[in-house]
Amino acid sequence: MSAEFDLVIRGGTVATATDVFRADVAVHNGQIAAIGENLAGARTIDAGGLLVMPGGVDTHCHLDQVEMSMGYGAQDFVTGSRSAVLGGTTTAISFVSHFKGEPIRDILAETLKRGQRSIIDYSFHQILADPTDEVLAELPAIVAAGIRSFKVFLTYDAIRLDDGQFLRVLAAARREGAMVAVHCENYDAIGWLTEALLAAGLTAPKYHAWSRPKVVEREATYRAIALAELVDTPIQIFHVSCAEVAEEIARAKRRGLKVWGETCPQYFALTAADMDRPGFEGAKFMCSPAPRDEADHDGLWAMMRQGVLDVVSSDDSAFNTTGHHAKDQNGPNASFRDIPNGVPGVGARMPLLFSEGVVKGRIDLPTFVGLAATNPARLYGLGGCKGAIQPGADADIVLWDATKTQTITNALLQHGVDYTPYEGREVTGWPVMTLRRGEIVMQDGEMVAAEGSGRFLARGPYELARPLGRLANGFDAAAYDRPGATR
Amino acid sequence: MSAEFDLVIRGGTVATATDVFRADVAVHNGQIAAIGENLAGARTIDAGGLLVMPGGVDTHCHLDQVEMSMGYGAQDFVTGSRSAVLGGTTTAISFVSHFKGEPIRDILAETLKRGQRSIIDYSFHQILADPTDEVLAELPAIVAAGIRSFKVFLTYDAIRLDDGQFLRVLAAARREGAMVAVHCENYDAIGWLTEALLAAGLTAPKYHAWSRPKVVEREATYRAIALAELVDTPIQIFHVSCAEVAEEIARAKRRGLKVWGETCPQYFALTAADMDRPGFEGAKFMCSPAPRDEADHDGLWAMMRQGVLDVVSSDDSAFNTTGHHAKDQNGPNASFRDIPNGVPGVGARMPLLFSEGVVKGRIDLPTFVGLAATNPARLYGLGGCKGAIQPGADADIVLWDATKTQTITNALLQHGVDYTPYEGREVTGWPVMTLRRGEIVMQDGEMVAAEGSGRFLARGPYELARPLGRLANGFDAAAYDRPGATR
Amino acid sequence: MSAEFDLVIRGGTVATATDVFRADVAVHNGQIAAIGENLAGARTIDAGGLLVMPGGVDTHCHLDQVEMSMGYGAQDFVTGSRSAVLGGTTTAISFVSHFKGEPIRDILAETLKRGQRSIIDYSFHQILADPTDEVLAELPAIVAAGIRSFKVFLTYDAIRLDDGQFLRVLAAARREGAMVAVHCENYDAIGWLTEALLAAGLTAPKYHAWSRPKVVEREATYRAIALAELVDTPIQIFHVSCAEVAEEIARAKRRGLKVWGETCPQYFALTAADMDRPGFEGAKFMCSPAPRDEADHDGLWAMMRQGVLDVVSSDDSAFNTTGHHAKDQNGPNASFRDIPNGVPGVGARMPLLFSEGVVKGRIDLPTFVGLAATNPARLYGLGGCKGAIQPGADADIVLWDATKTQTITNALLQHGVDYTPYEGREVTGWPVMTLRRGEIVMQDGEMVAAEGSGRFLARGPYELARPLGRLANGFDAAAYDRPGATR
Amino acid sequence: MSAEFDLVIRGGTVATATDVFRADVAVHNGQIAAIGENLAGARTIDAGGLLVMPGGVDTHCHLDQVEMSMGYGAQDFVTGSRSAVLGGTTTAISFVSHFKGEPIRDILAETLKRGQRSIIDYSFHQILADPTDEVLAELPAIVAAGIRSFKVFLTYDAIRLDDGQFLRVLAAARREGAMVAVHCENYDAIGWLTEALLAAGLTAPKYHAWSRPKVVEREATYRAIALAELVDTPIQIFHVSCAEVAEEIARAKRRGLKVWGETCPQYFALTAADMDRPGFEGAKFMCSPAPRDEADHDGLWAMMRQGVLDVVSSDDSAFNTTGHHAKDQNGPNASFRDIPNGVPGVGARMPLLFSEGVVKGRIDLPTFVGLAATNPARLYGLGGCKGAIQPGADADIVLWDATKTQTITNALLQHGVDYTPYEGREVTGWPVMTLRRGEIVMQDGEMVAAEGSGRFLARGPYELARPLGRLANGFDAAAYDRPGATR
Repeated sequence: MSAEFDLVIRGGTVATATDVFRADVAVHNGQIAAIGENLAGARTIDAGGLLVMPGGVDTHCHLDQVEMSMGYGAQDFVTGSRSAVLGGTTTAISFVSHFKGEPIRDILAETLKRGQRSIIDYSFHQILADPTDEVLAELPAIVAAGIRSFKVFLTYDAIRLDDGQFLRVLAAARREGAMVAVHCENYDAIGWLTEALLAAGLTAPKYHAWSRPKVVEREATYRAIALAELVDTPIQIFHVSCAEVAEEIARAKRRGLKVWGETCPQYFALTAADMDRPGFEGAKFMCSPAPRDEADHDGLWAMMRQGVLDVVSSDDSAFNTTGHHAKDQNGPNASFRDIPNGVPGVGARMPLLFSEGVVKGRIDLPTFVGLAATNPARLYGLGGCKGAIQPGADADIVLWDATKTQTITNALLQHGVDYTPYEGREVTGWPVMTLRRGEIVMQDGEMVAAEGSGRFLARGPYELARPLGRLANGFDAAAYDRPGATR
Repeated sequence: MSAEFDLVIRGGTVATATDVFRADVAVHNGQIAAIGENLAGARTIDAGGLLVMPGGVDTHCHLDQVEMSMGYGAQDFVTGSRSAVLGGTTTAISFVSHFKGEPIRDILAETLKRGQRSIIDYSFHQILADPTDEVLAELPAIVAAGIRSFKVFLTYDAIRLDDGQFLRVLAAARREGAMVAVHCENYDAIGWLTEALLAAGLTAPKYHAWSRPKVVEREATYRAIALAELVDTPIQIFHVSCAEVAEEIARAKRRGLKVWGETCPQYFALTAADMDRPGFEGAKFMCSPAPRDEADHDGLWAMMRQGVLDVVSSDDSAFNTTGHHAKDQNGPNASFRDIPNGVPGVGARMPLLFSEGVVKGRIDLPTFVGLAATNPARLYGLGGCKGAIQPGADADIVLWDATKTQTITNALLQHGVDYTPYEGREVTGWPVMTLRRGEIVMQDGEMVAAEGSGRFLARGPYELARPLGRLANGFDAAAYDRPGATR
Repeated sequence: MSAEFDLVIRGGTVATATDVFRADVAVHNGQIAAIGENLAGARTIDAGGLLVMPGGVDTHCHLDQVEMSMGYGAQDFVTGSRSAVLGGTTTAISFVSHFKGEPIRDILAETLKRGQRSIIDYSFHQILADPTDEVLAELPAIVAAGIRSFKVFLTYDAIRLDDGQFLRVLAAARREGAMVAVHCENYDAIGWLTEALLAAGLTAPKYHAWSRPKVVEREATYRAIALAELVDTPIQIFHVSCAEVAEEIARAKRRGLKVWGETCPQYFALTAADMDRPGFEGAKFMCSPAPRDEADHDGLWAMMRQGVLDVVSSDDSAFNTTGHHAKDQNGPNASFRDIPNGVPGVGARMPLLFSEGVVKGRIDLPTFVGLAATNPARLYGLGGCKGAIQPGADADIVLWDATKTQTITNALLQHGVDYTPYEGREVTGWPVMTLRRGEIVMQDGEMVAAEGSGRFLARGPYELARPLGRLANGFDAAAYDRPGATR
Repeated sequence: MSAEFDLVIRGGTVATATDVFRADVAVHNGQIAAIGENLAGARTIDAGGLLVMPGGVDTHCHLDQVEMSMGYGAQDFVTGSRSAVLGGTTTAISFVSHFKGEPIRDILAETLKRGQRSIIDYSFHQILADPTDEVLAELPAIVAAGIRSFKVFLTYDAIRLDDGQFLRVLAAARREGAMVAVHCENYDAIGWLTEALLAAGLTAPKYHAWSRPKVVEREATYRAIALAELVDTPIQIFHVSCAEVAEEIARAKRRGLKVWGETCPQYFALTAADMDRPGFEGAKFMCSPAPRDEADHDGLWAMMRQGVLDVVSSDDSAFNTTGHHAKDQNGPNASFRDIPNGVPGVGARMPLLFSEGVVKGRIDLPTFVGLAATNPARLYGLGGCKGAIQPGADADIVLWDATKTQTITNALLQHGVDYTPYEGREVTGWPVMTLRRGEIVMQDGEMVAAEGSGRFLARGPYELARPLGRLANGFDAAAYDRPGATR
C-alpha cells in the first residue's frame, strides 16, 4: 500500500477498552485514519514489542485552579500537562472555580486564559458553590461552550452545598443536559469529629483520617444518589475510597440509576498509615476522602473489575511542602484541619494503575484502558474523540513498554510540586512515547511539545448511558457521527 | 487511496460491542483488513443508512443432531445455516451427541461429516452423557481438534449427569482447558412433579410449565455454580429463563467466579400462556426451561443490561408438528411428557433481540452486538476471529436496516421446520445483506451461498475471563496475536 | 387455695409476646402477683373465651401538645387516654414540645401539669428542636426525671435539625443514656418538590403524597442510621411507611447496629388514594410520611414478621375538620402545604392491628402483643413494668374478644377529634375490659375511670438491646430486679 | 400464704427466652403451677443468687443408636442422660435408625425399649434412609405415636437420600404434619474430594476437613431449602457450621419460608486446626460438617443473635478412642475416611454456650435460653411442656450459678465416652441443681435420679411457625390449651 497516511504506528499490540489485537494504526490530519494490517504512511513508528493504547484521559485534576482561600495550587497547566504526557495522559479536565456570592463569568474567563498554556488538550468542570438564580442563569451559555459537567462539594467550608442547593444544581443539570460530579462527605459530621479531636489535642496529620471515617463518605454518597434519583439526573461519585461506599453505587446501578463511580491511585496505593509519619511528613499523604487500609484496596479492585467503579482519575490537587505545608507547620495552632487537602498524581496515575492493577493481575488490560482513558472520555462527552483507538478519533496515543521497570522519583515526574507521595516506589510498565493529535509530545521521558499547544475541548453529552431507545424514534445514522466532542 | 483491498463497505455506521461510529470497513483475503476513513477497494458495497455489524454468533443450536431416542431433529446444517444467514448469523456452534455406554468417536465422525454441508462457519460443543474413564480418555484429542467446550445436562432421562459425573466432567474440563455449558434443572424434582401431574390427569402441553417451575431451575443453577467453584472450572449456564435464576449467577460473579449466563428469545418473547392453546398448538412453544411470564421479561432485560447474562443464543431445537408432534398427539397416552422439547429460532434470533431490545429501548446497540455476536465468540474461543469488526477478524459482516419493518412468517425464515412460534409477529430492524469471510451469502432475503461452503472452526480457549496477571510473568505480545480461533 | 390475692382473672387464654397459654392471673396491690393454675382471690373476673393480654403501650401519640405555630392539637390527655382505654391501651408516651431559641423548663412544667389529667399511665419524649449548649445543659435533669428519650425531626420548618444539630443530640443522648426517636424525611427535598407542585398549581390534598415520595424518607432514614452509627447511640426510626425504608433498618440490624423501627396503622390500613377525595375530605388522611399503596402494605407486614419493625404506635396527632382544616380550606392560598399533618388513632390502633394482622393471618398473636405492648415498653424503659404479663409488672391488662365484630365510628372511639379516618370500617376482635394497675377502667365500651387517675412514669433505660456482656463483669442478680421503670 | 404447692423455688432470677425477672416458681404435681411473688410450698429451695431457667432441650443427640455398619455408639441412654442432667439438660431427642431395604417397625420397637432406661424425658426423630412405599406406609402410625419429625441425610453411604427420595420424604412429612431435619452436605462432592485426597496419600484426620469444605455444605443447604419450598414442608437445617451456610437460611426466612437452623458447640468452640494433632489425636475432633476457623465463630454468633440460627444442640455422637478409633488407627489402610464421625457433647453443651456466649457478651441471657431450651422445644412440638417457665409446663428446671468457674474434664462429664474434645477448658457458669418434673435429679454435680425414671414424650406439631390465621376461622381457646406435647 502506498504511503497515503501521514504516519503509521507499525507492529504494535493495540489495546482498547475491550480488545487486545495486533494491528497497525494509521494517522492522518491528526486523527486516527485506519486500524489495519500492513498499513503504510509517510512516516513510520516501530511499535514492535509495545502496547499501543489511547492516551490517558484524566477527568479530575486541579490545574491552575484558584482554591478557596489558598490562592492557586502548586500545579499549573504547564507543569501539570508536562507531567501528564510523561505519564501517558493526553487529556485533562480541570475545574472552573466558583465562590459564594460571586458570578462565574470572570473566573471562567481567567481560567480559560490560563488553560491556553496547556500542552495537552483540556476541558473543565464548572464548580457550583452558590446556585443562585443569577448563577443558574449563567449555565446555559457555559454548557453551550462545551463545559457540560458541574462539580459540587457536599463538604468543605465556603463551597459546600446543602441539600436544597444540591437539588437546584441537579435540576439545572437536567435542564442543560449536564453531568454532575459530586464530592461526597458529610460536612457536619466531619466538623463535629474535627472539633472533638482538636478539643482533645489530637492535631497531627494522621487525625485527618479520624475526622472523616468511611461512614461519613458512605452517608453522603447514599444521599447524593437518592437526590439524583429524585431529580433523575446522571451523577458521578468522585474519589470513592473503599468498597462499602462503592456498594451503594452498585446497588443504585442494579436498580438502573445513572450513577457512576471514580476512584484514584491514592485509594489503592496509599493507606491511612502513611499519614502517621513524624512531624508534617504525614501531610504529604493527606487527601479527602482519606486513604483507608490495605484490606480496602482489595475491595476497590473488585469494584473496578465488576464495573461499579468506571474511572480512575488522579484528583491531582497539590501543595508544596515548602509552601502551604510549611506555613501550617509553623502556625501557632497548626493542626490537620489547617493543612490543605490533596496530593499530586497526574503523572503517576497510569503507571500506578498499570503496575498495581495489570501487572499484579488484579485487572486485565482492557479494563485498564477503560478505567484510564475510554470510560472517562465517554462519561464526559469525549467518546469517539478521546480515549479511543478508532477511526475518526484524535490520534492521542501512548506507546507503553509493559515490562519496563521504573522507580518513581519526584524529579522523574517533572510536575510542579516539591514531592510525590510515591517517592521510591518501583513500578513495572512505563510509557515510552506519547502522541497528541498525531504529534509526538513525549519520547523516552522527554517532553517535546510546546507550551500552549494543547486545545480546549468543547464537550458533548455524557455517553456511557447511551440513551436507550434512541432507535425507537427512527434510526438516525448522523446521531452516531461523532458521538463525543463537538470540537 | 488506490484500490488495494478486495472490498470496501463504505459509508455505513459500524456497531461493535462497545462503540458505534462511522467508518469504512475494508476486506482482504476474507478478513477485515482495515477500519478507517475513505478506504478504497476493488469492489465497493454502499452501506449508507445501514448498520455494519459483526455477523451473529449463535453458540447454542442443535443442527443435524441425533437427539436421544428421537433420531435427528428437524433442523439440519443446510436448513439451519440457511435460516441463520437470512437472519444475520454467520457462525453456529452445534453439538456432538453422546449416549451412555457408547464412545464418542463414531458419533463425532458422523457429526463432523454432516457439518460439512453447512453454509456458515461452525463448530461443536461435545455433549458428555457418561463420563467413564474411556470417554474421558477421548477428550484430549477432541479438545486438541478445537472442540473446547463440553455440554452437560442435569436433567433429561438417558443423558442427565448426577453430581459425581458432573464433577468428573468439570475436572476433565479443567485439565483440558475447556468450558462447560450446563442445562440446569433438577431432574428428580421434574420427575416428581410430572408424576403428580400425570396422576391427576393433567396432560395438556401447558402442564409442561407446571412440571418445571422456577425453583427447579434455580436450584440446579446454584448447584452447578457451587460444584464449578469447587473444581474451579469456568461454566456457562444455558438458557436462563428469569431474573431469579440470573440472580444466582450475579451473586457468583460478584464473588469473582468464572460463571456466565445465556438466555434465548423464547424467554423474553414468549410466555407460559403460549402453551395454553387448544389441542397440541401449545406444543409449538414447549421448551425447557419453560417460558415464564411477562413480568419475567423485564427481569431478563435488566440482567442483560447489567452484564449478568452475557449471551443470547437461539437454542434452536425443533420438531415438526407433522412429525413428532403429530405422533405424540395421537398416541394413546399423549401427554406433555411425551412431546419433545424445543423450538426453532436460529433465523429469528437476531431480529427478535434487535426489535424487542434495541428498538424498544431496553438495551443499547453495543449491548445487542455483544449479546448476539461478540460475547459468545469470545466465550467459546472465537474472539478476534468471529463476532468482531477488527483487523484480522474474519469478514463476517451483516448490514442491517434498523428501520425496516418485517412480519415474521415461517416461509420467510426458510428453516427446516414446519412452523415458527413467532408467526405473524411484526419486528422492526432486519438484515439486508450478510457476508461470510468477505463473500456475500445473503442479499435482500435471498441466500446466495453454496451448501458446504462453511468451514469447521477449531476453537481456542475461552476469553471473557482473559487470564488476569497474564502480564505478571513478562509481556508476550505474541500471546495476543490471535486470541481466538486457531484456524 | 385461700383468697390471698386481691383479684384473680380466671380461665382466660394468656397471650404474651412469645407465648399463648391457659392460666389464671392474680393481681395484688395493683401488680401482677402470680400467673398460675387455680389461683384464688378476693375478687374474680371470668375471662373464659377471652384473650388476656398486657394493656397496649402506645409510645408515639401527641396529647395536649403545643404543635409549632398551631397551638394545642385536638387531642388532650383526657380525650386521648379515654379513647386509649376503650381500645385496650393503658400506657402512652406523648411529647414535651420545644421551640428554637427557648429553654425547655417552662414547656416541660406546663406539659407535666397537663399530663396529670390522664386516665392512663403516661410519660414523655423530650423533643429537641434547638440543641444549644443551654438546652443540652437541661437534659441531665430531664433524663433523671425519667424522660429518657429525645425526639428529633429531620423535617418541618421551625423544628427540623440539620445534621450538625442532630449529631449534638445523638452525643447528648449517648452521655445521658437516652434513646433517640427520629422523624426521617429530607427537609430540603420536600421543600423543593412542594415549591414545584405549588408553582404548577397542584394544591389539592393528594399532592401532599407527591411532595414526599419514598426516596425522601429512605434517604433520611439512611442518614439517621449513619449518624447514629458514628456516635454509637441507639435510635428508633418513627413511622416507617414502606418496605424499602424498612430495608435500610434491616441492613443496619444485620450489621449489629442498635436501630429499631416503628410503623403505624395509617401505613397498613390507608393508602395515598385516600387523600384523593373531593374537596378537603382528603385532608383527613394526611400525615407524614404519607400513606403509600396497597402493595406497600404487604411489605410492611413482612417487615413486622421478620422483626425489622418492632413497634406499632398510633402517631395520634389530630386536627378537627371544623378547626384547622376548615380554616385552611377557606384561606386564600389553601394548599396541602397549609394543612397540618396528622391523623387520630390512639383508640383504633390495637383493633386495627389485631383485625388486619392477626385475624387476616399476617402476624401471629405473640407478634401482635410484641408490637402493640411488649416491645414498645421495653424499648422505652418500661420493660417488666408495662406491656408484660409477668410477676411484678403493673396489672395493666386487656381482656379481648377475638371473635367480636365491630364497625368503627367516630362516636365509638370517644376521642377528641371530629372524625376518624377509619369511619365505617368493620374489624374483628375488640377489647371488652381494660384494667389499669388492677383497677377496671373500661368495661363493655364504657370508660369507668376518673380523670387524673393515671400516673406519670419515670422510665429506665431502653432494653431490647439488653447489654451484651452484662455477665462478663460478674453476675448481679439485682440488675434484673426491675429492668424497666424506676417508678 | 399457706403451703399449698408441693415445692417453691424461692428468690431466684428467672430467665426465659424473652425475659429476666425476679420471681418464685411454684411446682405442683410435677408441673409449674405458678410464677409469682412470695409463693409458699411444702418444700422450699433457696435460689438466691442463682438463675432459674428451663432445663435444656437437646433435640439432636444420638443415644443408644445403631449407627450404620458400626453397631451402637458409645453413648447409651443411661450415660447420655446422666451427662445431660449434670449439664442442665432435661429433655433429649434421639433417633430411630433406619436402613435401606428394611422396615422401621423392628428397629423402632428396640429403640423405644432402650429409651426406657433414660433418666430424662426423651423422644425420637425417625430417620428415613429408604422411603419406599412400604416404609411410607409405616409413617402415619409413627407420627400418631408422637414421633413427629423425620431425619434425612444428604450424604453418608448407605443412608443418603437422592433428591427424588428426599422429595418423597418431604411430601410424606407434609401429609403427616411432620418436620424434616436435614443433614446437608453434597455426597458426590465429598466422595470426589475424598478419592482425590486418598489418591494423593493425604489420610490424616485433618484431611477430613479438606474433604468437605464449606461449599459442599452450602450447596446441599440451598438444595434442601429449594426442594422444601417446592413441596411446602417445614425443615430444619442441622449443624450449620458457618455464616455463609446460615446466609442461605437467612435469605429463605426473609422470603417467608419455614426453614430453621441449628448449630452446635463444636462449630463455635472447635476449629479445623484441632484435627491437625499428632497421630490419631485429631480424630477426637472429627465431625461432619467439619469445624471451621476462628473467623467463622464470629459469623455464627451473629447468626444466633439475628435469629437465623434458632437452636444449639449437641449432635452428641461419640466413639471411644479405645474402640473404633483404635481399630481404625491400626488398620492397614487407616485414613480419615474410615474414622467414624462425631463428638460427644450432651453434657458440655449448655456450659459451653453459656460461657462462650453469655459470659463473653456475644448473646444475651434470653437468647441463651431460647437457643438451649425454648426454641428446640417449640420447634419439635414440646412448646408449653418443655423448655418453658410457664404455668402448666413440666417443672424441668435448672438452677445455674452464673459466676462459678469450672474446668471441664472427661470425668466431670460422666458420659459414656473415654474423652471429651473440651478437656481442660475453663468455663464460667455451671448448673448446680437440675429438677425434672419437680424432682431433683442433680445436685452439686451428683446425679440423684434412678435409671428409667425418664418418660417417652409423644410430641405435637412444630410451633415456631404457629399457624398464621389460626384465628381467621374463629377463635378456639382450646387450641392453645396445651400447644406442645400431647402426653
